[in-house]
Amino acid sequence: MARWEPGARERLQKAALELFSSKGFEVTTAAEIAQTAGLTERTFFRHFSDKREVLFAGQDDFTRPFLVGVESAPAAATPLQVVVSAVLGAAGFFPAEKRPYSRMRQTVIVANPELQERELLKLASLASTLAAALRDRGVSEPAATLTAESGVTVFRVSFELWLADETGASIEDIERGVFRELGALTAMVE
Amino acid sequence: MARWEPGARERLQKAALELFSSKGFEVTTAAEIAQTAGLTERTFFRHFSDKREVLFAGQDDFTRPFLVGVESAPAAATPLQVVVSAVLGAAGFFPAEKRPYSRMRQTVIVANPELQERELLKLASLASTLAAALRDRGVSEPAATLTAESGVTVFRVSFELWLADETGASIEDIERGVFRELGALTAMVE
Repeated sequence: MARWEPGARERLQKAALELFSSKGFEVTTAAEIAQTAGLTERTFFRHFSDKREVLFAGQDDFTRPFLVGVESAPAAATPLQVVVSAVLGAAGFFPAEKRPYSRMRQTVIVANPELQERELLKLASLASTLAAALRDRGVSEPAATLTAESGVTVFRVSFELWLADETGASIEDIERGVFRELGALTAMVE
Repeated sequence: MARWEPGARERLQKAALELFSSKGFEVTTAAEIAQTAGLTERTFFRHFSDKREVLFAGQDDFTRPFLVGVESAPAAATPLQVVVSAVLGAAGFFPAEKRPYSRMRQTVIVANPELQERELLKLASLASTLAAALRDRGVSEPAATLTAESGVTVFRVSFELWLADETGASIEDIERGVFRELGALTAMVE
């Protein structure tokens, strides 16, 4: 795909995010994104089905490190230990140098309900994938869904703390702390 | 609003769900829904902004019983106890006689990605509302969001178990069991 345009995809993503940030998502067109990136509209549509998908391309790339984390958990791991391994395993997907991009993307999404719905679907899809991976390991329902959803909640809360963080904490450190807090909060005292 | 058409809203909801189930959501029009309900299209649009909203009207009605549950929790309640009170407090919103309607609605939603996104937004909005209610009680972040999201996860999992249930269990009984299971699953063993 577009081998004659090295880095076309990344250039389109960068141009799109800049335009969404400066002009707003609603009024930006695919043609403008292509033009800003110095590419044709035709090249844009070879890479993305529409302007929204520029922000959400790569669900598989996003999900894969979580699944690698599931696979690296020992066979005797509890469902929670598997999910902790999945979430911490994906921490490498969010290095410090990616934070400015992630912050800019988050600002664009928060400003637009349609993008918020799409982001929720992306995270719901991650939770379904993790629940299926747990069931494959023999975890029954509703335990698989409960643990997978809890893991995604920890990821989402940690991701927002990481975006706001000014201390240089890694997302992995934040996630460990949030998992501990979740455990303390949901302990039933009857 | 349409006082001269008693029950217009309910008739439109019933007609819409029947058409969505039999013909499919995509091909059903507002005009057809109105006609099936024996009402005018104009009356339809007095009650709903579009056909999708027929399935999602009443976010406030849906959220209110959860908030009543928050308010009825004692001042000394832990964040989890407040959220348990919220979720169990809303159980009255799902009496056994509502189950056939809820099952039919769920089948329509599961068949359509746009409706799934909208349902996710509805539950995300519930979680945000519960987190804000916890913060109003002095619970800090990220504890408020973690507990609220966990409560919504328990609600969602319980709701699906209730839809599938053939034993006549109440949603409240199911929710109690799922809260216990969540507590056991998320306990950190380090």
